[in-house]
Amino acid sequence: MNAGFLQFKPTFGDKKANAEKLSALVSSVKADLLVLPELCLTGYQFRDRKELAEYAKPIPGGESIDAFTGLAKTIGGSIIAGIAELDGDKIYNSAVLVSPEGYRAKYRKIHLFDREKEIFTPGNDGFEIHRVGDANIGMMICFDWIFPESTRTLALMGADVIAHSANLVLPYCQKAMPGRAIENRIYIITSNRTGDENRVEGESLHFTGLSQITGPGGDILAQADETEETVKIVELDIEKTRDKQVTKRNHLFTDRRPEFYKLD
Amino acid sequence: MNAGFLQFKPTFGDKKANAEKLSALVSSVKADLLVLPELCLTGYQFRDRKELAEYAKPIPGGESIDAFTGLAKTIGGSIIAGIAELDGDKIYNSAVLVSPEGYRAKYRKIHLFDREKEIFTPGNDGFEIHRVGDANIGMMICFDWIFPESTRTLALMGADVIAHSANLVLPYCQKAMPGRAIENRIYIITSNRTGDENRVEGESLHFTGLSQITGPGGDILAQADETEETVKIVELDIEKTRDKQVTKRNHLFTDRRPEFYKLD
Repeated sequence: MNAGFLQFKPTFGDKKANAEKLSALVSSVKADLLVLPELCLTGYQFRDRKELAEYAKPIPGGESIDAFTGLAKTIGGSIIAGIAELDGDKIYNSAVLVSPEGYRAKYRKIHLFDREKEIFTPGNDGFEIHRVGDANIGMMICFDWIFPESTRTLALMGADVIAHSANLVLPYCQKAMPGRAIENRIYIITSNRTGDENRVEGESLHFTGLSQITGPGGDILAQADETEETVKIVELDIEKTRDKQVTKRNHLFTDRRPEFYKLD
Repeated sequence: MNAGFLQFKPTFGDKKANAEKLSALVSSVKADLLVLPELCLTGYQFRDRKELAEYAKPIPGGESIDAFTGLAKTIGGSIIAGIAELDGDKIYNSAVLVSPEGYRAKYRKIHLFDREKEIFTPGNDGFEIHRVGDANIGMMICFDWIFPESTRTLALMGADVIAHSANLVLPYCQKAMPGRAIENRIYIITSNRTGDENRVEGESLHFTGLSQITGPGGDILAQADETEETVKIVELDIEKTRDKQVTKRNHLFTDRRPEFYKLD
């Protein structure tokens, strides 16, 4: 399958302008799967929960899902993108899977980062796998990456590709992804944003860019630089992720010895 | 504490020559902890279990432990080194912790690699933590690294430093260790061997060298090249590993949400 990331700099609070910029960036892109950053239509740094509530909408439904469906039609494939989700009196930092036919599934971020804990509710639906073409796709969002249990859980559930929508500010993720890909023999598509947000006193955020596609052998198959707005698509060989034999006698999953792990 | 690795090329089957080479390599080294490769006195590629049995000895006791104790006295600190361990009718691929006063502890490799499965018994004692100076030390051996559960278990048990005795032949470990170090905020000292062994038809082994010390932020603090025989020691700041707060609101361990992990 052809899959990749879009990296860009959204403008805080301007869903319309951000959707237009996304449309322009994908105008000549064809792909089976394109991963967009976390909270890509709204921006990231909400001042408080009240401000966030002005932007969060129920899923499915709403103009954001329509915008993603439009992008999916343009590329002729699926979009995974971050979005603020309203559900009753709760707001989740979510990602959605949208095909040219519309909304398919969502994931609610399980591991909230820093001040997100004050404005979002932590995800409560666990990790799931979704079929896109011949590939099993898992979703995770930004800080989920730092817990090896996130990718491990998705890989053990059968993920071939992990779609990782992110707004990264720490300098670690990009150099840790090769390990994650190798230990599970999967592809990981990290879509990060760029730019800065300084809307909150004492919280100056710089988003690190460097979106990347990591292959099952830990190789970086494509990477953006720290600031560019771009789309990068590569051909993923899904068969590679199905063979978990590292040697004739070693299988990445069945060689595990959980009786000796203390992980709680 | 001052800690590091020794990288060298042992001669298969010549314990005496290997011990002498180790003595020469550490003759001017001072360190609190020095990690040596897996099976460093015997070499790696035993033709079969019968040949291995000629070299494996009970632990503690034996000339190998005496040799490691001698090295510990020379450096004025502890040695962790790989050794073939005989226990009744079983043979383990083990690592020992030896101080200038002699034998302290052992670890039996839990995840056996490739043809080791035909000649060794898999470790049955789990992972343990040992105090060396101000640091909590965990041991793992070579292929244990590919399972994130190994380092995770040791880190959750309190490891500040993981001593990783290795005979690496796959091209993955060195690029995966930054992720392991970051997610657990620990030091990892990988001591690899160099050279080739071609004693078994159809199994040509090239050991990759590139021993490295990975810091808690994923930085490579020291690295050997692919062939050199060398010792590299760096100062480890153990306080750094004790603080698992990645942000004011995020703790690497207590932010885990095991109720959403499926790891069995």
